Formats: sequence, C-alpha cells, structure tokens
Amino acid sequence: MTFPTLSSLLFRRPLVAPAAASTATSLTRRAFHNTPLKMSAKLKPAARVSGRRQDVWSIINEAAAASPKQPIVNMGQGFFGYNPPDFILNAAKQALDKVDCNQYSPTRGRPRLKQAISDAYAPHWGRKLNPDTEITITTGANEGMLSAFMAFIEEGDEVIIFEPFFDQYISNIEMPGGKIVYVPMHPPKEGGTKTLSAAEWTIDFDELERAITPKTKMLVLNTPHNPVGKVYSREELQKIADLCLKNQIIILSDEVYDRLFYVPFTRIATLSPEVEKITLTVGSAGKNFYATGWRVGWLMGPPDLIQYVAAAHTRICYSSVSPLQEACAIGFEQAEKENFWSTCVTDMQAKMRRFNAIWDELGLPYSEPEGGYFVMANLAKVTLPDGYPFPPHVADRQRDFKLAWFLIQELGVAAIPPSEFYTDENAHIVADYLRFAVCKDDKILEEAKERLRGLKKYIQQ
Amino acid sequence: MTFPTLSSLLFRRPLVAPAAASTATSLTRRAFHNTPLKMSAKLKPAARVSGRRQDVWSIINEAAAASPKQPIVNMGQGFFGYNPPDFILNAAKQALDKVDCNQYSPTRGRPRLKQAISDAYAPHWGRKLNPDTEITITTGANEGMLSAFMAFIEEGDEVIIFEPFFDQYISNIEMPGGKIVYVPMHPPKEGGTKTLSAAEWTIDFDELERAITPKTKMLVLNTPHNPVGKVYSREELQKIADLCLKNQIIILSDEVYDRLFYVPFTRIATLSPEVEKITLTVGSAGKNFYATGWRVGWLMGPPDLIQYVAAAHTRICYSSVSPLQEACAIGFEQAEKENFWSTCVTDMQAKMRRFNAIWDELGLPYSEPEGGYFVMANLAKVTLPDGYPFPPHVADRQRDFKLAWFLIQELGVAAIPPSEFYTDENAHIVADYLRFAVCKDDKILEEAKERLRGLKKYIQQ
Ligand SMILES: Cc1ncc(COP(=O)(O)O)c(C=O)c1O
Ligand SMILES: Cc1ncc(COP(=O)(O)O)c(C=O)c1O
Repeated sequence: MTFPTLSSLLFRRPLVAPAAASTATSLTRRAFHNTPLKMSAKLKPAARVSGRRQDVWSIINEAAAASPKQPIVNMGQGFFGYNPPDFILNAAKQALDKVDCNQYSPTRGRPRLKQAISDAYAPHWGRKLNPDTEITITTGANEGMLSAFMAFIEEGDEVIIFEPFFDQYISNIEMPGGKIVYVPMHPPKEGGTKTLSAAEWTIDFDELERAITPKTKMLVLNTPHNPVGKVYSREELQKIADLCLKNQIIILSDEVYDRLFYVPFTRIATLSPEVEKITLTVGSAGKNFYATGWRVGWLMGPPDLIQYVAAAHTRICYSSVSPLQEACAIGFEQAEKENFWSTCVTDMQAKMRRFNAIWDELGLPYSEPEGGYFVMANLAKVTLPDGYPFPPHVADRQRDFKLAWFLIQELGVAAIPPSEFYTDENAHIVADYLRFAVCKDDKILEEAKERLRGLKKYIQQ
Repeated sequence: MTFPTLSSLLFRRPLVAPAAASTATSLTRRAFHNTPLKMSAKLKPAARVSGRRQDVWSIINEAAAASPKQPIVNMGQGFFGYNPPDFILNAAKQALDKVDCNQYSPTRGRPRLKQAISDAYAPHWGRKLNPDTEITITTGANEGMLSAFMAFIEEGDEVIIFEPFFDQYISNIEMPGGKIVYVPMHPPKEGGTKTLSAAEWTIDFDELERAITPKTKMLVLNTPHNPVGKVYSREELQKIADLCLKNQIIILSDEVYDRLFYVPFTRIATLSPEVEKITLTVGSAGKNFYATGWRVGWLMGPPDLIQYVAAAHTRICYSSVSPLQEACAIGFEQAEKENFWSTCVTDMQAKMRRFNAIWDELGLPYSEPEGGYFVMANLAKVTLPDGYPFPPHVADRQRDFKLAWFLIQELGVAAIPPSEFYTDENAHIVADYLRFAVCKDDKILEEAKERLRGLKKYIQQ
C-alpha cells in the first residue's frame, strides 16, 4: 500500500468529482437520442457520496502511517491492541467447523446469539428480552444504527444528536434524508486548568427542549460516551426520556461501551416501561469482546420498533457474519463464568490510570473518564512553536488539528482532533483537546508516555 | 425459535404497521406544543420498510421449518450444504490468532485480500487490477451492490434490471430513490415440453433499447444467472455493452457465480477498455468459497467509479469482517495450487447431473444450466389434485406458488417459486417453474430425488 502525503491526508479534503473520462470525445457522438452527453455528467456520483470530506479515521490512520516517526504510536482509532480472550477465539474456531455456521444466518440473527444476549442482558434489564421479537443482530453497531435510521427516518425528519458525536451518525442520518439538529454538551469551565470528571460535561436541558420541533423523529444518545467518557446519570437520562416521551421521539441509545463503566451505569430503556417502548438500544460485540473487526452488533427494543430495524437490515446486508455470531453467542454464555466482564472493567481502568499518569506528570488536565476507553486531554498549556511550518491545510484549521499534526510529526503519537465530532459552529469548544484511545497494550501506553514527555519543553507551568 | 403457521408465512404478507401503543392515551395530553399526537403517528416506520411483503427466502425457509414432513429437504435457498475446503477454514482459524485480523480493517478492505483478488482475477481480466484503486471490499455482494446504488443513484434515476432478478436488487435500488425499469428474459417456447439449454432464455434487444431513457443511470446484469442458469454469450454482452456505452449507462455486472461456469464465460468488463470504464463487477467469497455466511464481497472497476462505491460502503458498514477477509485472501492465494477452482466446477456439474436425472426419470423438462448452482424445472405436466385444500393465501396465487406449497406439504421438498423474481405483469412467464439449489450434499440430493418420485402419480405423460 502506498500512502499519499501527510498534508493531503490529515486535513479535510473533498473527494474530487470524477473528471470527464478520456473516452468522452469518441462517445459523445453516439449518445442517447443523438443529444451529446458528457461522460462526466451521466456517470457522476450521487450527492450523498460526492464532495464530502474524508472520514477522520482514515485521515489519521493514513497520516500516522506516513509520519517520519515510525513506528508511530497510534492512539487515534479505538481498535484494541490485543486479542479477544481465548474462550471466545476458540469458540470462533469451533464454529468454523460447523456447516451451518459458515452459511447464511437468519436475517435477524442466529437464535443462539439472540438467546445469549437475552440472558446476558437480563440482570441489567430487569427482565429477559424476547429473543425473537425484541432483539435483532446487525453488521456491527454501525450498520445497526443505519438500519434504525433507514427504518424510521423519512426525508426531512429531524434527528437530535449531542455534540461531540460519533462521526458515522452524520452520514447514517443523512442517507435516508434526515435533518440533523445539534445540541452541544458543555465542558467544564475549568477544563483547561483542572482535571475534572467527565460527568462535568453537561447538557443544557432548555437548549435540548428548544431543539425539539414537531418534525423531531429520533434522538441519539451515547452512554458511556465517545469521546467524552461521560456516563449519563439517571437524573440526566430521566430528563431526556421525559422530553422524548412528551414529544413521542424515538430514542436511539448507543451503548456500545456498556461493559466499560467505572461509575454506576443506567440504561435509559430501563427507566420505565413507557420509556422502553420508545427506545432502541445498540450493542457491539466489537467493543464487548475486543474484536472491532468482527462486525457483529445488535439492537434491542420493543417488537413494534425492532421489526422495522430488522426489515431495514435485511435490505442493507441481508444477514450478518455467521461463524462470528456463533462465537459471540458462546462469548455471552461463558463470560460470567470466565469472570470476563469484571476483568474488562479492571483492565481498562488500569490502562486509564497508567496512561493518564503522563498528564499528571506534565501538569496537563484531562477529563477523567466514567466509562469507555477514550480520554480527552486538554493541551491549552502547550505552546506551539512560533512559525512552526504547518502545511496550508493545517494552518487554516483549528488548534486541535494543529496539535494532532504536531504530535504526529514531532513525537510520533497519533490522537484524534475532536473538532471532527462537532459542527463548525461549536468546534471551538474543543480547540485545546485531543482524544486518546487507551485500549492498547501496556507497553504501547508506556511508549506513548515516553514520547509525550517530549511535550515538556512546550508547556508553561 | 417458534414458527408461525405455514400459511401465514409462505405467501405475501405485508408487515403490519404498528398499532397505537398502549401508552398512547396517557401520553397524548403531554404531547408537543399541546397538540395531541397519536403515538402511532409519531413512531411510525419509513415507507421503505413498512407494508412490504416478507422476502421470499425467509418465507420459504420458515415454511419449510413448519412443514409436517420433517426433516424437510430444503433446496430453496442457495446456501451450501457443506463446508469450505480445509485450506480456507484453516486460514480463517489462523487469522483469528492475529491481533490485527480481529480489529477494524481499512474501509476499502485488507491490502492482502485486494492484492490476492487482483492476482486471482488477472488471468480472466487480461491485466492486474490496481488493488488500491480498482478493488473495494464489501459486506457480501449484497451490501456491495447497495453501495453501488447508493453511490450513483439519485431520486428518480432509472435502473434497468432483467426479469427474473435476484430479489434484493429491488430494495437496494429503491433505497436511494431509484426507479426500476424491467426488461424480461424470454424462456424458450418449448420449455414446457423439452429440456433445453438455459442459453435459450433470451433478451429482446429492441425491448431493451426501448427501456432506455435519458434518466437511465445504471443497468444490472447477472451472469452466470440466478435463477435461470444462463451464462450470457459474448455477442449478447456486446449488444448490452454497446447500448450502455451509447447512452453512458453504468453497468453493474453481478458475477457472484463466476467460478461456476460450464460453458465459456465472458466478463462484460473485459470486452474493451471503453466498456471497462463504465462497468462495476461484483464478486462474492460466499459463493466462491462455499461460505455464504462469511459476508465478504468485492466490487471491481475503474477508480473513478470504485472510489464512490467505497465511500458509500464506509457510510453503510464502515468496514467488513476482518478475520474472514484474511481467510479469503489466503483462499485466493492458494486456490490454484489446491486445484480448487476446477474442483468447484467438476463437483457442481456432477451435482447438477445427479439431481437433474430425476427430471429425466419423471419426464419433466428443465433448463440445462450453463453456470451457477440453480436449476429451473418446468412442472407444466404436473396436475395438482382437483379441490386440493390450498389455504386462502395460496389459492389466490399463481401456479408456481401452489406447486411450491404442494411440494413442501406432500413431499417435504422445498423449492423457490420463481414468480417472486418477476413483476406481477410478467410473473405468468414462470407459472410452471420451480427453482432448486443443488449446492447440497449428494445424499440430500438423492433424498430429494426419492421424495420427488412421489410426483409420478400427478404426471400425465
Ligand atoms: C459511540 C460509538 N458507536 C458505535 C461505534 C461503532 O461500533 P461497531 O464497530 O460495532 O460498528 C463506535 C466505534 O467506535 C462508537 O464509538
Ligand atoms: C445473483 C446473486 N447476487 C448476489 C447474491 C448475494 O451474494 P452475497 O451472499 O455475497 O451477498 C446472490 C445470493 O444468492 C445472488 O444469487
């Protein structure tokens, strides 16, 4: 694989519309009904894919791959730097020996997986979900959420999302013609000088209420939150739920980090039977089992909603990967016995503590995560050298992009500029922040820390 | 898993729109801006998923599962009754031990798989495709085709497909707002009395030309063809290509059965560099490697088109299943050495011959397949008993549905009524046909034949 130059990759770059192909001249004479047609005109892409910026993941991954400081320490994307546990890998290998595990699964998912999910979630849900009607398996949480939007959004319907947001929400909502309405999470005022809990990122509920219109069809919630690390409190969830109930808005609760919480975690669907009726809850085997490349996810909710999500999923992917669904079923069946869920929490918390020690050492504040595997560090105290040669694409951009560039170039550490998870209007909120994923081997975390010590000379204490 | 009644499943059944939920009354008083809103109104699904019939695959699979003749011999859906070969299964197991093979793959696919595809297709293509720009990996052929439609179809654009069609095309084209224009393949006049080659199903090229309008954006071709078993001849492909070149129509060539051809097989993209420029070719690891549940597919074509397919895929699934992509890469790398491709052909042809002997024995004609693993048998000579108690849903339907019902109920053999692959207008063309998938173990094929002997008493010779 060859990589384009760093500057062309790290920064927003609209995909170029295809130029008139070289055969156009010879073809125009033969065009339909003798009307000369430019090849470029007839073959052009749909608006939904053309002229958009490249997604931040590939930008940073590719930029990292092209940095002079190789090998780069990539703390950008949230993939695990280690394998799923053996009991799950072995389950996958055994599934590969079974004929039916290599062939199409039912479109709603393998019965064994749906049953295992029903059983595994029961302690949290307070009851067993009906595996046939209240659970549907998708191709990762991502395609699951797209399926939900495809199932309920008509052209012009509005969907409320909080900023910062997981970037795939945007294209997933826009694909069926939804209009996105943004409501910002507000960081703590003292975030630039003090390490505070991620709980201090808050919603202004009046602002939320003002965002609701008669066209509001869905609201997307994410808890534990990427990138902030916030776990919404029961009180916050109740306020959101009340507004959604009052206005009959479907809640899509993205809970992919639901096994990684360091404070009490409430699922909005469990607040009351009324809230459950309007809520779709999203899960991800990729996040639960350290296997982001397996592409197994699920949506849970009332049969009236789930049936349409399943119908959309059937039209999008037909069905999801069979042998890995089987492995996930076995993963859920055995996780408690293997003490896996509590190990997940202990291990990730230890990684958080290990890595964040560098910020304490450097005197840089961060948002102490309540869940998930991301940490937002605040680099307000870092002074970028005067006249540093940022390439033109970077020079124009906000400070977090400059910080990301600087870290990749000078220290060989990749992190994500979180303004990518904001609208232009609100991007300034995170101008001083960078997001780091700590789901990496401890020796990588130590290497990252060692490299980040290189920041010392740029910090005014 | 519990199964609904057979009659409710086998026949077109619109999904019921969700009724007003039980909490509606208590909620209306609190509705937005004090306007009473029915829960059913605000929570209703989008038109693209509501009120549609259930897909034929789940209908027949579930009907088969509910038949009194258990275990049913299911020759309905085209999944394999046996495993991928060991060298591919072993590759998958080894991939599961590698950290990067369990995490997100690049959105366009793993470099090793794209390289392996480039190498494996080179002998057929006459050159090596550029793995970085001319190949993109998708979640099965299905999501690959959806990605292509999402990449190029705007509301109101027209897409030509031939009848009979693979049913997922319909929802995949409609999702981005495409309008489908149907052009029938015409079966041989003597199909009811004589076994003839599937080549005898033909396109009327004047009919095709008349179907083209200035809004025609894409044409979908499928060769080797499901369900007909036709492999389009070079001359037919040239005529289609000429029309598409003249009118600058993107050709989406669904070649998922490209390793199963029993007559010479031409890829339309290889007709000329000009045709290649407007063609997207679709492949499927599920079909190539006997692993329909793996959900790995790919699209190949010019960079100008592929980049937008890849952009759409990123927005739909983000990336595709990693360890099985790696296994497919190794599958392609080793297939020639393992003599796998020629074994595929020999084995499937033997199965075709083995199974079709029953039609010869019964004196029922069929379309002799030129490729793929489906056979269309013509049951015109079968007299269904007078006054046979078809349930109301069946009684209304065309004869092929009655035949399918009768075979499931009386013989315990499931096949697909091909009128599901036609518009209502043209469904009569296949009133006497049933589609059987022969990609099953030989002993299943023998069992099917034994059961089908039960048809003898209903046949007038
Ligand atoms: C908040 C959030 N939702 C969803 C996803 C996607 O999950 P999956 O990999 O299962 O598609 C991610 C992945 O980073 C995420 O951070
Ligand atoms: C003609 C045709 N195209 C595409 C597909 C879907 O292939 P995949 O399983 O790779 O999505 C099928 C599956 O039956 C098919 O028959």
